[in-house]
Amino acid sequence: LKLLTPGPLSTADAVRAAMTVDRGSRDAEFLALTAEVRRGLLAVAGANAAYAAVPLQGSGTFAVEAAIGTLVPREGRLLVLVNGAYGRRMVQIARRIGVPVDALEVPETTPIRADALAGRPTHVAMVHCETTTGIENPLAAVAAACREAGAALIVDAMSSFGALPIEAARQGLLAVVASANKCLEGAPGVSFVVARRDALLAAEGRCHSVALDLHEQLAGFERDGQWRFTPPTHVVAALAEALRRLDAEGVDGRRDRYRQNLRVLVDGLRARGFRTLLAEDVQAPIIATFLAPTEGWYGFDAFHAGLRARGFVIYPGKTTAADTFRIGVIGDVTPRDLAALLGAVDAVVAELR
Amino acid sequence: LKLLTPGPLSTADAVRAAMTVDRGSRDAEFLALTAEVRRGLLAVAGANAAYAAVPLQGSGTFAVEAAIGTLVPREGRLLVLVNGAYGRRMVQIARRIGVPVDALEVPETTPIRADALAGRPTHVAMVHCETTTGIENPLAAVAAACREAGAALIVDAMSSFGALPIEAARQGLLAVVASANKCLEGAPGVSFVVARRDALLAAEGRCHSVALDLHEQLAGFERDGQWRFTPPTHVVAALAEALRRLDAEGVDGRRDRYRQNLRVLVDGLRARGFRTLLAEDVQAPIIATFLAPTEGWYGFDAFHAGLRARGFVIYPGKTTAADTFRIGVIGDVTPRDLAALLGAVDAVVAELR
Repeated sequence: LKLLTPGPLSTADAVRAAMTVDRGSRDAEFLALTAEVRRGLLAVAGANAAYAAVPLQGSGTFAVEAAIGTLVPREGRLLVLVNGAYGRRMVQIARRIGVPVDALEVPETTPIRADALAGRPTHVAMVHCETTTGIENPLAAVAAACREAGAALIVDAMSSFGALPIEAARQGLLAVVASANKCLEGAPGVSFVVARRDALLAAEGRCHSVALDLHEQLAGFERDGQWRFTPPTHVVAALAEALRRLDAEGVDGRRDRYRQNLRVLVDGLRARGFRTLLAEDVQAPIIATFLAPTEGWYGFDAFHAGLRARGFVIYPGKTTAADTFRIGVIGDVTPRDLAALLGAVDAVVAELR
Repeated sequence: LKLLTPGPLSTADAVRAAMTVDRGSRDAEFLALTAEVRRGLLAVAGANAAYAAVPLQGSGTFAVEAAIGTLVPREGRLLVLVNGAYGRRMVQIARRIGVPVDALEVPETTPIRADALAGRPTHVAMVHCETTTGIENPLAAVAAACREAGAALIVDAMSSFGALPIEAARQGLLAVVASANKCLEGAPGVSFVVARRDALLAAEGRCHSVALDLHEQLAGFERDGQWRFTPPTHVVAALAEALRRLDAEGVDGRRDRYRQNLRVLVDGLRARGFRTLLAEDVQAPIIATFLAPTEGWYGFDAFHAGLRARGFVIYPGKTTAADTFRIGVIGDVTPRDLAALLGAVDAVVAELR
C-alpha cells in the first residue's frame, strides 16, 4: 500500500526495521540516539548554537501548542497569518491557552501576506506549507518583514521540514515546529520544536501545561540527556534512521524527488482531464489538490476505494473553497510510484464510468 | 536485552512485528484497529457503556494532565493522595493548570490513607501502584471512601493496568488513566483515559489545552472513528496486538506470572543478602525496590553496567527515603528470565568484589 497522503506516509524498510528493537528509555544507547536526533534536527532547520532542538511526545499539533504556550508571553500579542485549517488551528490554540491573538486571513488559494504585520504583534506565526491546499507560503519574505518589524516568527513547518529549505539562523526565526512523519519520512508519534535557546531558557514557568512545557523538556535533555517523560523509543529510533537517510539524500535531493513526483502526478492527471486547485507558481511539492470531477461517475468514496484496492491511498479534500481531493507526493515514493498511480486511475475511471 | 524497568519494557515479537507495516491514519483498516483498542481498554478497565475509552498521543503524563484538565471543574477541589513522585506530579500538574488542589502525603513506604478525605474535595486522585517504590495503594478502599463522601475518583493506573484488577463500573470510578507500554506490554507513544461518558460530554471547553482536551478527542472518535490529530499508527497497531495477547493470557494470568517473577527475584536477591525497601504485604508485583548494599564493592553505575553487559537492564532508585535500586518484573519476561538475572547478579558481584 502506498500512502499518498499528508502523512503518516510510506516509510523505508530500514526506518520500520528500527522499530523492531526494544530499547530502555534511560539506557545509554537510546540516549545516544536522542542526542543524534537533536543534532540532526538542528542541522535540517539551518540552526546554529543559538538554537536547541526539543523533541516532544505526540503529534505535530502538540508541538505547535507547546511552542505557542512556551514562547509567547501572555503580555505579548500573536499575529497568525492564515490561509487554511492549520493557520486557523494556531488561532484556536492561542485563544484556548490565553495568548492574545489576531488573525490575518486570506483566501485558501492565495499565499499569506508578508507585507502587513497589522496590530504591532510581538510574535507572528505562519504555516510554511498549508496542507489544506498544498500551497507554499513565502517564508523568506515573512521572515524579512518580521525582522524589520521586530516581531519574533514561529514557523509551523510540519509539511515542509526536510524538503523545503529553512534557514532558522540566517532568517532569524524564533522557532520552527514539525513532526517526524512528514518529509523526514519517519514514523508518527514524535514532534519537535527547534527554537532559540535564550527564549526557551527565559520561559520558566510560563507554559500553561506541564506536559507541553518546552522549557522543562529542554532542561531535562540538557541535565542528563534524558526525556522528562517516557519517550516513544521505537519511534525515536525510526526518526534517527530517517534522519540518516535524509542526510544521504540531502534536503535538495529530496525536494527534487518530490518535485518529480509532483510533475508526474499533475501532468498525468491533467492529461486525463483533472484540474488542480492552485496556480502552478504557489504549489509546493508536497501535496496537490484536485477539483472533484463534475461528471456523474465521480464520487470520492468510490474513487478512493478503487485506488485503494489497487494499492494507493489518497486523501479527501479539506479546503472550504471547492469540492476537491488530495494526493500527496511525499514519503518513500518515487516518480515510478506516481506513474503506477496514473495507471490505477485509468482503471478506476474506466470501472466507474 | 531484557528491560527490567518500570517501562518501556521488553515486548513480544508479535507486538513489535505489528509496527513493521505503514497504515494510513484515516484508512478503514486503521480505524478498525482504533475501535478494537478502545473496546479492549474498556474491558480491561472493568468499565461498561457508561464509560468511554479515549486514547491520547504521548506518554502517560500527557493523559494524566488531560484527565485532570478535562474532568475537574475549576470551581471544584482536587485532593491528591500522595506517597511518591507520581502523586506529587499530579499535584504539580493541578497547580500549573489552575485546578484548586490539596495534597495528603504519607511516607513513601506507607500506602496512602483511604479514611480521611480532608477538605471536602469534589475530586480525589490517587496512584494505584507507585513505581517510585513499587507499593500497591488500596484502590478498593479509597473508591469506597470516595463513594461515601460523594467525591469523584481519578486513578493513575499507569503501572497496574492490565495486571492488577480494576473495576471502574463496580467501584464507581470517574476515570482510569494508563499507557500502552506498562503491563499491557505494548510500545510507548500512546496513553489513554477510560472515563465516565457523561463527565467527558459535560466538559466542553473546559480543558486548558487543545491537544489534551479529552472532550474533543472523544468527539472525534465518536463522530467518524478518527483521531483528531495524527495518531502514532505503528504504536496503536502494536497496542492492538498487545491487547489480544492480554486477552489470551487474562489479567489474572498476567498478575500470576508477574507474582512468580517477583517471587523468584525477591527470594533470590534476599538469599544473596539484599534487602527490600517495602514490607511484603504492600509490595505490588510490578517493580521491587532494593536497598543499596553498603559494602564497598557496590556502586549503582558499576552494578548496572555489569548486568547490562550480561543482557539485563535494571533501574536506579527514585525514593527519597533511602539509597536504592529497582528491578521490574513486568513485560514479556518470565520466572526463567528472573532466574537468569540472579546468575548475572552472582557474576557481577564476584567481579566487583
